[in-house]
Amino acid sequence: MHSIEKYREEFVDFLEEYSTIKEPQTLYSPIQYILSLGGKRLRPVLTLMTADIFNNDYKKALHAALSIEVFHNFSLVHDDIMDDAPLRRGEKTVHEKWNVNTAILSGDAMLIMAYQLFENYEANTFQALAKLFSKTALEVCEGQQYDVDFETKENVTLNQYLKMIEYKTAVLVGAAMKMGAIVAGASKDDQNNIYDFGKNLGIAFQLQDDYLDAFGDPETFGKQVGGDIIENKKTYLYIKALEFSNENDKAQLQKLFSNNADTSENKVEVVKQIFKVSGSAEATKKAIEYYTKRAFLILELLNISDDKKTLLKNFGHSLMNRSV
Amino acid sequence: MHSIEKYREEFVDFLEEYSTIKEPQTLYSPIQYILSLGGKRLRPVLTLMTADIFNNDYKKALHAALSIEVFHNFSLVHDDIMDDAPLRRGEKTVHEKWNVNTAILSGDAMLIMAYQLFENYEANTFQALAKLFSKTALEVCEGQQYDVDFETKENVTLNQYLKMIEYKTAVLVGAAMKMGAIVAGASKDDQNNIYDFGKNLGIAFQLQDDYLDAFGDPETFGKQVGGDIIENKKTYLYIKALEFSNENDKAQLQKLFSNNADTSENKVEVVKQIFKVSGSAEATKKAIEYYTKRAFLILELLNISDDKKTLLKNFGHSLMNRSV
Repeated sequence: MHSIEKYREEFVDFLEEYSTIKEPQTLYSPIQYILSLGGKRLRPVLTLMTADIFNNDYKKALHAALSIEVFHNFSLVHDDIMDDAPLRRGEKTVHEKWNVNTAILSGDAMLIMAYQLFENYEANTFQALAKLFSKTALEVCEGQQYDVDFETKENVTLNQYLKMIEYKTAVLVGAAMKMGAIVAGASKDDQNNIYDFGKNLGIAFQLQDDYLDAFGDPETFGKQVGGDIIENKKTYLYIKALEFSNENDKAQLQKLFSNNADTSENKVEVVKQIFKVSGSAEATKKAIEYYTKRAFLILELLNISDDKKTLLKNFGHSLMNRSV
Repeated sequence: MHSIEKYREEFVDFLEEYSTIKEPQTLYSPIQYILSLGGKRLRPVLTLMTADIFNNDYKKALHAALSIEVFHNFSLVHDDIMDDAPLRRGEKTVHEKWNVNTAILSGDAMLIMAYQLFENYEANTFQALAKLFSKTALEVCEGQQYDVDFETKENVTLNQYLKMIEYKTAVLVGAAMKMGAIVAGASKDDQNNIYDFGKNLGIAFQLQDDYLDAFGDPETFGKQVGGDIIENKKTYLYIKALEFSNENDKAQLQKLFSNNADTSENKVEVVKQIFKVSGSAEATKKAIEYYTKRAFLILELLNISDDKKTLLKNFGHSLMNRSV
């Protein structure tokens, strides 16, 4: 086993080797650009780590890891068009640096390239990886669609919200790990359990992201604190606050989250206050703990040494103990 | 063997069975919509016919045929955004009927669904189909990008133009036929030759489309006659006309095709006249014959009965003998 840092370095080396600009440059330059913007490379690192955990030469999982990263970046390129986002990782988004048409077409090419990376595996592994990939990719599209739909939907239930973040975010974390297990030739049970581990951790991670968006430290949180509140996002915090609040607070919350709401600085503070007094903030913390615990329980089912379970647990803790 | 009409009917039945609207409907309704708009279903019919020609139960090729059709429609949905096209097959385009974001995301889902359709085949066939699909799909993206690039490129050479139409249009015809051969278990030689047959016929078909765009019968040609000229498209006709014309006509042609050119009705007539007197119209006809002949020569290499060769030839003729 190796350190997270070692996997990341190996992955980035492999990525750089892969990212040559082919003809037509107008199609491939934006791809090289978005892939080189960096980020934590969390998903591909999980693929490599999981392959290693199941006793495989983790380098054999590099193509699968890269496929996951190329797909993730494809989804960022297209989501950024849909969200009209100007910046990604502090740099211009593809549709801003080039234009919308280029972002659409380069994104399409990335989705295809993600599949092509599986061609380095023999037929049965290829099929297993591509099937998992298709299922996951389609769920990510569905999750993105639910997210878009929720913007204009009056009553989003907790279950609907949880399904949305499961599809939009968590399944890809599960798939990243399962791909490592597939390449390593792990048993079907181990493949499915590591998928569930990743998925539950992914849900916990997204809920934590929601929590930190309101209550994180502005000094260290990567995004604008209160961003979800300003954008009227119906997160776990919001849905629970509606459920728990008295009629007064509920009406105020709904008014603040209506389209014509005032966008004063005060809004963020008032909403955060309602999140706290309603017990929604606490309920969200509990949910984060619940999904993290679920992930750790599934871990016990894996046919791997206790050392490796501890390693995965520590990784989970390090992911969840960020206070930023 | 069956008639073209029979393959088409079988295909449309299969398509209708497949096109159920799942949740979220906002993602899947546009997919159902574009797939139901009709069209000649040329590509999937070619897949079924080719499977039949190589002695297979053609129904086994239905999933591959549908994959090709779903991909083709994916490319239409995204291309229509890029071209800002209001209509497709006489109906509203997806981004017009819904919006650009929906058209992007539903298109993405279609590309993934095209891959999923290969899951009905065993691992080796799956891999062969998916590899061919990825290679072809990426070439279609590259072809589309070249087409976009040529809009603002001063000097497009004949070879560059031929490569563009090969990638954007012809490789998918070749791949549609090769997929039928793969499913039927044809030899590698037969697979590659039927691909080349389809590709050459595809190039001939596109060149004929260029020709008919200028010289077709307005009564029967599906699109606006002169459309390419109005849009300053650098087609085979235009490139050859520049090559063959005297300095006067060349200058006039370039002026008419410059961005600030007059868009009077007269333009179409003047350009068509230059296409004729320069010999470009005749050269384009010759090129159509050349690629059709190439396709038919390759046909002779196939390990199939003469009857079946005649059948493919007749199909090619019927495709190329349209005067509309």
